[in-house]
Order: sequence, then structure tokens, then C-alpha cells
Amino acid sequence: MGTVRLWTDEEAASDARVAAVFADIRVMRGSDFINNFWRALANQPAALERTWAKLKVVMMEPGELDPLTKELIYIAVSTVNGCGYCVHSHSAAARAKGMTEGQHGELLGVIGMAMETNALATALQIAVDGAFLV
Amino acid sequence: MGTVRLWTDEEAASDARVAAVFADIRVMRGSDFINNFWRALANQPAALERTWAKLKVVMMEPGELDPLTKELIYIAVSTVNGCGYCVHSHSAAARAKGMTEGQHGELLGVIGMAMETNALATALQIAVDGAFLV
Amino acid sequence: MGTVRLWTDEEAASDARVAAVFADIRVMRGSDFINNFWRALANQPAALERTWAKLKVVMMEPGELDPLTKELIYIAVSTVNGCGYCVHSHSAAARAKGMTEGQHGELLGVIGMAMETNALATALQIAVDGAFLV
Amino acid sequence: MGTVRLWTDEEAASDARVAAVFADIRVMRGSDFINNFWRALANQPAALERTWAKLKVVMMEPGELDPLTKELIYIAVSTVNGCGYCVHSHSAAARAKGMTEGQHGELLGVIGMAMETNALATALQIAVDGAFLV
Amino acid sequence: MGTVRLWTDEEAASDARVAAVFADIRVMRGSDFINNFWRALANQPAALERTWAKLKVVMMEPGELDPLTKELIYIAVSTVNGCGYCVHSHSAAARAKGMTEGQHGELLGVIGMAMETNALATALQIAVDGAFLV
Amino acid sequence: MGTVRLWTDEEAASDARVAAVFADIRVMRGSDFINNFWRALANQPAALERTWAKLKVVMMEPGELDPLTKELIYIAVSTVNGCGYCVHSHSAAARAKGMTEGQHGELLGVIGMAMETNALATALQIAVDGAFLV
Repeated sequence: MGTVRLWTDEEAASDARVAAVFADIRVMRGSDFINNFWRALANQPAALERTWAKLKVVMMEPGELDPLTKELIYIAVSTVNGCGYCVHSHSAAARAKGMTEGQHGELLGVIGMAMETNALATALQIAVDGAFLV
Repeated sequence: MGTVRLWTDEEAASDARVAAVFADIRVMRGSDFINNFWRALANQPAALERTWAKLKVVMMEPGELDPLTKELIYIAVSTVNGCGYCVHSHSAAARAKGMTEGQHGELLGVIGMAMETNALATALQIAVDGAFLV
Repeated sequence: MGTVRLWTDEEAASDARVAAVFADIRVMRGSDFINNFWRALANQPAALERTWAKLKVVMMEPGELDPLTKELIYIAVSTVNGCGYCVHSHSAAARAKGMTEGQHGELLGVIGMAMETNALATALQIAVDGAFLV
Repeated sequence: MGTVRLWTDEEAASDARVAAVFADIRVMRGSDFINNFWRALANQPAALERTWAKLKVVMMEPGELDPLTKELIYIAVSTVNGCGYCVHSHSAAARAKGMTEGQHGELLGVIGMAMETNALATALQIAVDGAFLV
Repeated sequence: MGTVRLWTDEEAASDARVAAVFADIRVMRGSDFINNFWRALANQPAALERTWAKLKVVMMEPGELDPLTKELIYIAVSTVNGCGYCVHSHSAAARAKGMTEGQHGELLGVIGMAMETNALATALQIAVDGAFLV
Repeated sequence: MGTVRLWTDEEAASDARVAAVFADIRVMRGSDFINNFWRALANQPAALERTWAKLKVVMMEPGELDPLTKELIYIAVSTVNGCGYCVHSHSAAARAKGMTEGQHGELLGVIGMAMETNALATALQIAVDGAFLV
């Protein structure tokens, strides 16, 4: 599968912008592994730079949500969007950040519950309660 | 809007199954307020009982994810599904459970990031890295 | 709301293609009522003709699925797509074709069940069993 | 692919809850075959029990919709959600329950028609006709 | 994968309707290649005829949008729907019609931007400005 | 509707970051009008800055796709996601950039065609042709 080529490390080294992003990914993650998402995005250096820069802000900067909670939310969104690649990569990331089997099970429970009640609310076209308005 | 009637308290009182669920909602939530989701679902007493029973298990039983984290995941799923009612009700629920403005902002950031990278991974049809497989 | 104007009967009468479709809708449905979907689509006469012609084939020609079953499937698709207009119009159509409260309840049950198990299968990225392949 | 392990029969036998669900699936379906959905869900015994119990109620209890109609609705939802596993498993289930080629073709026709008109209604942001409100 | 059989040229030759569509595809595209979409749809000759006829009108008739722009829109829709097959086939079609790497990158940028702001607007449930209404 | 407050110009003036973004929007667009999307996002100044900065790059920088084509793609994505606000705002933007009725009609045609064939390809689970792989 694939609509673009996956860049090898050799190809990445030949493009200064791609090389810089790949180097930064390795430093930030403390690992030599560059997953296929970045190797595919390398075909578009501007998008690669923009996406990685944003990921660092959104997912890595210290804030009020801990890193694992962010991964759980990421899995939820990726599941509803049906993105198999993203479900795989962020489930692995969540486990690396300590997701337990119990947490995974509860995450699946909440996603499933929301999927079902979303459909019920949509099928019934329920008017929003005044109490919920800001 | 609405494809079904919203049950009043008087109507609910006339159906033993609906009355019992409404009473349990009030006890479990410690509030007299019954939001429109349940008033719409009352048209289908079996679905009302089943959905409320499951919500108690999935969202209210103590577990490894705290109640606020569950609400954040619920908002994420509801957003991707485009369920306006659910976004309203679970944003209100999250605030009632202590969601701060900062947490709301980070939630929006993660949802937006995931939406974008989901689309990139799908548009590029990226093969899953062997390292992500269980 | 609306990104286009809804055509009145007077305006429709002034465009031969729109007038012909509106007249055919009235004959086929045995009713003078033209709902807003067609009044909006009238802004694009070619799309109006094409869509109405296809609707007659897909939804009205006798076949192996009865008209009510087709409406239930239509509601299911419209619910997952979050199309409020379509949920309203096809729920009304299903009721006009005899949908009972019990059938509506079971339809909601199946949609909800499918939504939940779709998400579970996607979140778990389950490989297709060989037995399911044609 | 897969974000969790698929349980073998041997592993299932070692967990009382999983063993009980697998045994009940075999009895209810009159077949020794356990498809991968349940083998994946076995990693979360509580979700396995809950999902199977609900499936028996929603899909197997006698009601006002026949079993084949329920499968057609299931296929429709799974298609819109883009769940490849679910489309495979429920297309096989529908065939096992007697779905003909003609019915399959009409199902595809209705799904396609709904997909298209859902998009048109959303792109035009059409206001709901008063006649459709309950 | 597959829930239906892919028709070979030999099988297609044995069904007059399928043979006619396959022949027309080859003439219209100036190529002997028939991709799997049509070989799968051949199981439903009426759907095959209807879909091909519509594709010729929508995608091939001269109009106000050029063929490449139509393919970019097709890729965008297919990406949001998570249709891997469609993303592959229409990315190939866009390249055959001259899509450059730069255009592909900008397409990805717009899709990603829209995905993110769609989610923000939905999560915030923003009321439509009066200025946007027709 | 709304899960957050819409900021007035007075409130915006009291926050340096929000004030700066609002001022830049007015300069870049050559108009005093600030639509509700930005007034809602103002509750999260960091997200406001980040989103506006990215919109300027993706939608306003000169490139290989013209501004109107980008709006058509934006409408397509927003339609599939069912974002009513976004469909309204970007349909208005497309008209402001010169979208004709004919182009709007063709856009709707392509979106509808893609929606339908996406569903067919997913329901049939068609294997990707080798010819489409990069």
C-alpha cells in the first residue's frame, strides 16, 4: 500500500529540511527509530516541518493533561476516523507511556458507549437542554 | 427538531420501567434534572433501561481511568461523530467534574492534531510499521 | 440556515426542468407536498433531475427489498453520517410506510450495536478471518 | 495487523469468564467456529461478556425486525464507518441468513443513494421541513 | 479481502451488460486496463451500468471545473471517508492528469487544515454568523 | 448553541494575544468582520494564534493551487465531516472568491459521486490494484 514513497535514511540525509526533522525526532524521542508516518510525509518537506513542530507543541509540551491521557484521546479520535495506521501507532505510544490492560479496556468501553449514544442522539435528533448552554 | 416526543415527568410516571430509570438517574446523579437524552429514549423503554445500565457500568464504576478523563474521551468521540447534542452534554459534564479552561484547550489541541494526522496517514495510505504490531 | 435559496412553486414554474421534476414528484408521491431537499436542489437543475431519476430507480422500483426496509437502511446511513435533515425526512418516510414503535426501537438497537462493535474492531485492528473471504 | 493478541482456544480455556462466553457463542450459533472479533475482545473479559450479552439481546431475540434485515442494517452502518472487519463478517452473516445477490445489490444501491443525498443535504444546509417534526 | 468475486475478462464477456460497460470503459479511457472497482461491481450489473453512466457525466463531461480539480476533490472526500481503495485509485488518476508534488502537498495541507477546524467548530458548537446565510 | 462564550471586540481588546490575532485577521482580509469561529477560539489564545498562523500559510500563501480550488476542497471535507458551521463559512468564502453556480453544482456532483463510490468500494472491500501502488 501507499500513495507515496517512504524515504530511507539515505534519502533523508540528502534533503536538509528532512534531515533536520528526522534528527530532531530522534533527539526528542531518545530513539533511532523513525516510523513510516514521517518517512511518508518527507515527500512534502514543508508539511513535515509544520506537522512535527505542531506535534511537539500539542503532545510534548508540559501542560494540564498528562502525556498518557493525550494518547488515549488520540486513540479515540483515530478509532472514530477509522485510521488503522494511527490506531496502531498511538496504541503502541500509549503502552510505551504506561497504559495498562485495565486502562485500555476502559478506554474501549468509553469509546463504544459514546459511539452508541452519539448514534441514538443523532437518530432521535434531540434538542439541546438549556442547562447545557454556556 | 426531534424524531420522537420528549417524555414529561408525568408521562414517565405512568410507565413503570421509565419511572424506575428516571428515579435511578436522580439518585445516582444527586439531582432532580433529567436531560432530554433520557426523555427521548423513554419512547423505547427497553433501550432506555439497557443504555442507562451500561452507562452506570462504563462511566460511573470506579476503575483505572478517572471520571474526568472518561468525559474528555467522550467529548473527543462525539466531536468526530459530529453529535452536537453529545458535545454539549459531555462538555457540561466535564466542566461539572472539574475540567479547567487549560484542559479544555489541550483537549481541543489533541483532537485537532489527531484529525489532521489521521487524514495525512489515510491520504498517504501508510503501511503499519512492524514495530507497532503486537 | 442554508447555503442556497429554497425555490418556491412560482420560481419552479419558471424553469422547465425544475417544473417537470416537481410535477413528477407530486405524481409519484400522490401528494402536493414538495420538501425542502428538492427546493434546495432546484438551484442545480441537472443535479435535481439526476438525483430524482436515481431515487425513483433505487427507492421506488419493485425489487427484493421492501420499501420500509429501504427506509430503515436509509435512516441508518443518515445517522452515521450525522445528517439531521435526512434523519428527519427518512424517519417520517419510514413512519408513513408503516414503521412501528417496536421496529424503530430495534433499528436504534442495531445501529447502536453496530456503532459500538465497529469501534471495537477498529480499535483492536482485528485481522479478517479466512472464513469470511469470498 | 492487530493492537492486541488473538486468544487461542487453549488460552480461552484458562480463563473462566472467557471460556464461558466462548462456550455460549458455540451453543447459540450451533458451530465450533469462534471468529477473531471475540478472540481479540477476550483480552478484556468484562467487555467480552458485556458485548456478547448485548449482541444476544439486540441481534438474536425475536422481535419485529427479522434477522436478515438486522444484518443489512449492520452492513450499512459498518460501511459508513469504514470498518473492513465488520463489513466482511456481517456480509458473511447476511449470506448465511439468506441474503440473495439481488438483495445485496439493492442494499448497495440504497447505501450509495443515502451517502450521496446525505452529502447534498449537508452541503446545502437545508432547513428541516415543519412536516417532518414530531 | 473482498466480499464479492472480481470478474475476469472471460466472465465479463459472458454477460452482455457487463461486457458493454467494460468495452465503454476501455474506449473512454483509451486503455485496456479495467481496475478492480468495476470488476467487483460487475456482480451487480444494474449498479455497474448506473455508476459508470453517472461517472461519465460527473467526471468526464466538460464543465466549469477542470478534470484535475475534480480528482483533488475526490481524493479529499475519499480521505475523510477513510476509503483506502478510493484514495489509491484517485491519487493515481490525479497524477495521470498532471498533479504535481507541490499540488499534492497543498491538497494535503488543505485537507488537514479543514479536518482540524471542522473539529474545533464542532467541539465549540459555534453558531453560524448571519453574514454567511443566503 | 455553543460550549464556549463568543468574545466581543471589547473583550478581545483586553487580551494582548487575542487583540493581535483579531487585528491581523482584519488586515489580511481587508475587512472589519470577525466571524464567530475566531470569537469562540479566543477562549484559548494559544490555539487561536496557532490556528490563525497555520491558516495563513495553508490557505493564503501563493502556491500551486489557486485560492478558489482550496475553498472547494475545504467545502468537500467539511461536508463529509458534517460541520454545518464550516460548510456555511467556506461556501461564503468560495462565493467571495468567485465560485459560480455552475462550479457549485459540479462540486456537489463530485462530492456525491465520491460519497457513493467510497461506500461501494468499502462495502465490497475491493483489493487495491497493483497498478495504483507507488
